[in-house]
Amino acid sequence: MSGLIGLDWGTSSLRAYLLDGAGEIRETRTRPWGIRHLPDGGFDAALTDITADWPRFPQLACGMVGSRNGWLEVPYMDLPADTTQLGSTVHSLRAKDGLDVHIVPGLRNPQGPDVMRGEETQLMGALALRHDLAIHSNWILPGTHSKWASVRDGAVVDFCTLMTGELFALIRQHSILCAGPGDAAADADAFERGVIAARDSGAAGAFSRLFSARALMLDGGLEQPSVPEYLSGLLIGEELRSSLASNRFDHEAPFQLIGDAALCARYCQAASHFDIDLAEPLVDCAAYGLWQIARRVGLVNVSSSAASKEASSC
Amino acid sequence: MSGLIGLDWGTSSLRAYLLDGAGEIRETRTRPWGIRHLPDGGFDAALTDITADWPRFPQLACGMVGSRNGWLEVPYMDLPADTTQLGSTVHSLRAKDGLDVHIVPGLRNPQGPDVMRGEETQLMGALALRHDLAIHSNWILPGTHSKWASVRDGAVVDFCTLMTGELFALIRQHSILCAGPGDAAADADAFERGVIAARDSGAAGAFSRLFSARALMLDGGLEQPSVPEYLSGLLIGEELRSSLASNRFDHEAPFQLIGDAALCARYCQAASHFDIDLAEPLVDCAAYGLWQIARRVGLVNVSSSAASKEASSC
Repeated sequence: MSGLIGLDWGTSSLRAYLLDGAGEIRETRTRPWGIRHLPDGGFDAALTDITADWPRFPQLACGMVGSRNGWLEVPYMDLPADTTQLGSTVHSLRAKDGLDVHIVPGLRNPQGPDVMRGEETQLMGALALRHDLAIHSNWILPGTHSKWASVRDGAVVDFCTLMTGELFALIRQHSILCAGPGDAAADADAFERGVIAARDSGAAGAFSRLFSARALMLDGGLEQPSVPEYLSGLLIGEELRSSLASNRFDHEAPFQLIGDAALCARYCQAASHFDIDLAEPLVDCAAYGLWQIARRVGLVNVSSSAASKEASSC
Repeated sequence: MSGLIGLDWGTSSLRAYLLDGAGEIRETRTRPWGIRHLPDGGFDAALTDITADWPRFPQLACGMVGSRNGWLEVPYMDLPADTTQLGSTVHSLRAKDGLDVHIVPGLRNPQGPDVMRGEETQLMGALALRHDLAIHSNWILPGTHSKWASVRDGAVVDFCTLMTGELFALIRQHSILCAGPGDAAADADAFERGVIAARDSGAAGAFSRLFSARALMLDGGLEQPSVPEYLSGLLIGEELRSSLASNRFDHEAPFQLIGDAALCARYCQAASHFDIDLAEPLVDCAAYGLWQIARRVGLVNVSSSAASKEASSC
């Protein structure tokens, strides 16, 4: 029996996948043990716990576990990068239990500069799930630090980071814009108004409209509990406006989402106000990406892979 | 003997000016008693304390003291606005000591929408100090919520708010970008690099470059203690880029700063990377603006005013 233990190990959480010899996910486990929130015993204890009772398959990890503050610093690889190149620069460490842990490098874009760790592996998994997008496509991975990536011939050739999620959280928690009374309320209309304000901000950009949330509220045009939804629309809309205005992502090529379903749904709604179509997001891309890279490294050896089939999207 | 007590009463501080019958500032007092940080006894106690031993001159206030959370809510006046119009909508209240306090309205820009309270008075004072700018000029008032205003024929005809100062504070205190070890260090070069990154961000805008602070730091191209300076340059540069790109401020008309000398010096340095000249800031504009408006209201009555002379800039 052969297989792989895949680890998607980020700043705030750890996810472990048990994949069988055909690259199918057999089990998924999640713990709140990001590299900044490790349990007693650190990386070793976290890994031992999350893989308890699983077969002793090769272990391949991606994400912030390979950063300066991670388990082992794996230098960034410069663009362009495909599975072969990522596989050729995997680094390894010996855990206390005597087993090896292999770690995928992050990617560095010398233009910017910019960096990613973990998303490169998701992109490789997504391309295995969607062969049709390998030739030429654009990818959006929403989150605390959203990534936009451009793919050509199976390789990531460009990417940039938008701090949309972190800025929204900072403004939501600390700004005077959200300091009024009342709990936040779901308000699809307010979200939509924020998106449109961002789209219409033109070259000035939506941060020049941020204060409109307060002015609208004083005017009676926006209820205080709806301000966070308006700001969510404004910031996601700005991510779309800004990235499309950068001309780094060919509008003629398809755009595809990867990530959390609820967050991606906001991006789909926002995109309807721009001239791009966003399909439903792909899921479990990290697991499939780790599988693809493991094959290149020779950690697993199979002739046919379930992960290469078209996967259903959520 | 005649004169005026002018009060610049904002969210975080209270400044009182004693002006003589010629509109000259005789004394200035400052207390940390913004409308959110009042002493025991509230507005009345704050006013009694800060004006202790001063003559019982008429009292005119501007700023957040006229807001919904202030002493008396004075409705915003819609653009355009000059001293005559501001004077005609001053509201009054009777303090516990039996004396009247008159309060200048804030301004509302229906386009946006946008609002200001206090800056309209500073602008009126600045125009009295600089008659040559009354016909056609642009004004920048840097701060937590920076204001850019356009003046024609002595009236404010357009303005917008940029939340540069608040966003910088949020990122400085709470973002992962500034989470590294070491105290912040002065670094004029890092500031300059941030300004240039913002200028060169084009229509995408500088918020698409925010993460470059982290990537540069990981790359060794920026020391952690210099990150705040880089971000200060990036955000001030973005305020300039965004406002100039909005085409709301005629680049052919002069630009003039009002505000804190140290902060304005940053704007002057940043502006050298754009195609505008920024002269040294004007100071004590609130006091001269209150004097001008008080004359229109009839609170003071003089034929010649020292405040109408050209004032020295700092």
